[in-house]
Amino acid sequence: MTGNGQPYGAIAHGALAIKDGLIAYVGPQVNLPQFDALSTPLYDAKGQWILPGLIDCHNHLLFAGSRANEFELRQQGASYQDIAAAGGGIASTVKATRAASHEQLFVLGKDRLNSLLHEGVTTVEIKSGYGLDLANEQKLLEVAALLAEHHPLNIVKTFLGAHALPAEFKEDAAGYINEVCRMLPLLAEQQLVDAVDVFCEGIGFSVEQCRQVFNTAKALGLPVKAHAEQLSNLGGSALVAEFSGLSADHLEYLDEAAIARMANAGTVAVLLPGAYYFLRETQLPPIALLRRYQVPMAIATDLNPGTSPFCSLLLMLNMACTLFRLTPEEALLGVTRHAAKALGLTDRGSLAVGMRADFACYAISQPAELCYQFGVSALKQVVIGGTLCRLAKNV
Amino acid sequence: MTGNGQPYGAIAHGALAIKDGLIAYVGPQVNLPQFDALSTPLYDAKGQWILPGLIDCHNHLLFAGSRANEFELRQQGASYQDIAAAGGGIASTVKATRAASHEQLFVLGKDRLNSLLHEGVTTVEIKSGYGLDLANEQKLLEVAALLAEHHPLNIVKTFLGAHALPAEFKEDAAGYINEVCRMLPLLAEQQLVDAVDVFCEGIGFSVEQCRQVFNTAKALGLPVKAHAEQLSNLGGSALVAEFSGLSADHLEYLDEAAIARMANAGTVAVLLPGAYYFLRETQLPPIALLRRYQVPMAIATDLNPGTSPFCSLLLMLNMACTLFRLTPEEALLGVTRHAAKALGLTDRGSLAVGMRADFACYAISQPAELCYQFGVSALKQVVIGGTLCRLAKNV
Ligand SMILES: [Zn+2]
Ligand SMILES: [Zn+2]
Repeated sequence: MTGNGQPYGAIAHGALAIKDGLIAYVGPQVNLPQFDALSTPLYDAKGQWILPGLIDCHNHLLFAGSRANEFELRQQGASYQDIAAAGGGIASTVKATRAASHEQLFVLGKDRLNSLLHEGVTTVEIKSGYGLDLANEQKLLEVAALLAEHHPLNIVKTFLGAHALPAEFKEDAAGYINEVCRMLPLLAEQQLVDAVDVFCEGIGFSVEQCRQVFNTAKALGLPVKAHAEQLSNLGGSALVAEFSGLSADHLEYLDEAAIARMANAGTVAVLLPGAYYFLRETQLPPIALLRRYQVPMAIATDLNPGTSPFCSLLLMLNMACTLFRLTPEEALLGVTRHAAKALGLTDRGSLAVGMRADFACYAISQPAELCYQFGVSALKQVVIGGTLCRLAKNV
Repeated sequence: MTGNGQPYGAIAHGALAIKDGLIAYVGPQVNLPQFDALSTPLYDAKGQWILPGLIDCHNHLLFAGSRANEFELRQQGASYQDIAAAGGGIASTVKATRAASHEQLFVLGKDRLNSLLHEGVTTVEIKSGYGLDLANEQKLLEVAALLAEHHPLNIVKTFLGAHALPAEFKEDAAGYINEVCRMLPLLAEQQLVDAVDVFCEGIGFSVEQCRQVFNTAKALGLPVKAHAEQLSNLGGSALVAEFSGLSADHLEYLDEAAIARMANAGTVAVLLPGAYYFLRETQLPPIALLRRYQVPMAIATDLNPGTSPFCSLLLMLNMACTLFRLTPEEALLGVTRHAAKALGLTDRGSLAVGMRADFACYAISQPAELCYQFGVSALKQVVIGGTLCRLAKNV
């Protein structure tokens, strides 16, 4: 996943050496230097492909409750209005998540992280956004911090207070945005926030409201990102670019002017094919234009109970290719190098000397295999920070 | 999954008793009779849902080689002609499968069956069709028989000699159909054939050629089915109905007259959303008409390297709902009761006294959960023929 002139930056007959959790060598086996180290390989990945650990850069995995009932009603023909009237929608997830303890959310989160780990994912973003008040947003970010401490996966914590309007602020979006801007410094002070996200949409928050949140983030030195241009072209992506933000995510309705701004600002385009699929969208993100402007494209699960109930980054690779027509190389860059960039991380996402020793070994004939087929696990081993992870074995 | 008046035929606070591999009781726990048997439960599925073991009634899992390269070329913009010229397409799978030994195919098949088992699948159809000559079709069916013997999953063996035209019979479809009709009795004699399938399509075989195969099957007392109406309305489904066949599969271009014939003949409509998704089809199968004529709808993986490289029946449940707008109950009937009917099996597919004790236990709040979310396994245990299966544990 480096630009060495080969597709995928591939190295044939390679070797990889680890020191202090970082990559000390990666390149052809014949050039492997002498190390004052173990004389036998820690792990023989003969015939396998070693990839940088996959990175899921957009994930809402801390939620309680199930929306299966709502799904069933919808499939039986109920409208969104019917479902909202029956207490469904995001309000039901907020209610269940507020009622859940740290312990309950930890277990839910751990199971979801384990599923991702078993695909070769080594870094996951976790967004808050189902608490929508200080105590519950704090609880979610604390659980994310607990998972970071107790689970081998690397976690990045994103504050998404501006996700939806809580019942307490019904018809007072301005008042709630003020509350979000009051929460943010309090949470940041406790080291619970690595980045700040907003839902910029007609059914979410306006560009001006998002700007207020971004200004608060900027004053705290926190990077920003947005859910933008998913259902309409509101201008959230240009706003992110204006703040030199990390990423604009979804982007089905993104226009060329905003793409140019993202390119200038170094903002990553995060594509979320799971939501596109689940909502049966027909408007594709402007992939050709993103390519032309060389905006890096990342791919993520958007795991959430309302619009992308898919805890599988490998499935998203297939959907990115099948539904969005990305090439397998673009899709894999989207869950490695470009996903790292979307999280503002420069120490992972490719295999190079000095990078974190986060990688996954797959029994595949070629990298495209990971995008093409789905269902039979090819993962043989995962190493995070130089440490082999314990994996469940198949029978 | 029986018609007891409840959605899904659900039984709350239920108990299930097993004798000699069959269900001896299923119903409310309070009505559980006294059995001269174990005094403590074999397995406590408290808080879980017990479903009939899932059935994948359309699966081509015995193939060798990878088509990832072809996928990559296609995503890069190559046409089907380019790919065929580069030796891709089904011909490449036939070549690799012919070159593979029984042992190699056994291992490939075992890994795929294991993935299905870990979703709660207990019966899988295995089609031949990548051999396309007597020795290689026989090899595939022998491997299917070996898997039936050595893997806990139940296997149904389907002869699909009329899958594609092998290179040896280029431009001589009639000659190859004669050859298929010569192979069939030889394979049937060895107990290698439970059913006979054909690919009835412009790029496959004509209705008259399929009729010739069906007549040969009929003379041997073997049930028939077809890949039909996937890309055009050729009439394969009506032909299946004419032979009182088990199922017509794909069906995107099926018309009302053929639906009426299928209803009269008791032929199951097998829907294959994985192929629809992977080929980016836009023509939906006539779901509303199938409902109106009460044609039972089954759902299957169609696992194959060319058009549905998905070894996951749970993913197909989601796709059946999301892409085909089935209700979760219809989708689950499609992988239990109706899938059993599609295979001509009357001893499984629902939980009732006298049926095989094939079932799966899931930690889910409601059955729709299996259709709605994907990625975090809810499977807790699988029982096949009354025997608990050994499963891989998650970390
Ligand atoms: Zn999101
Ligand atoms: Zn098929």
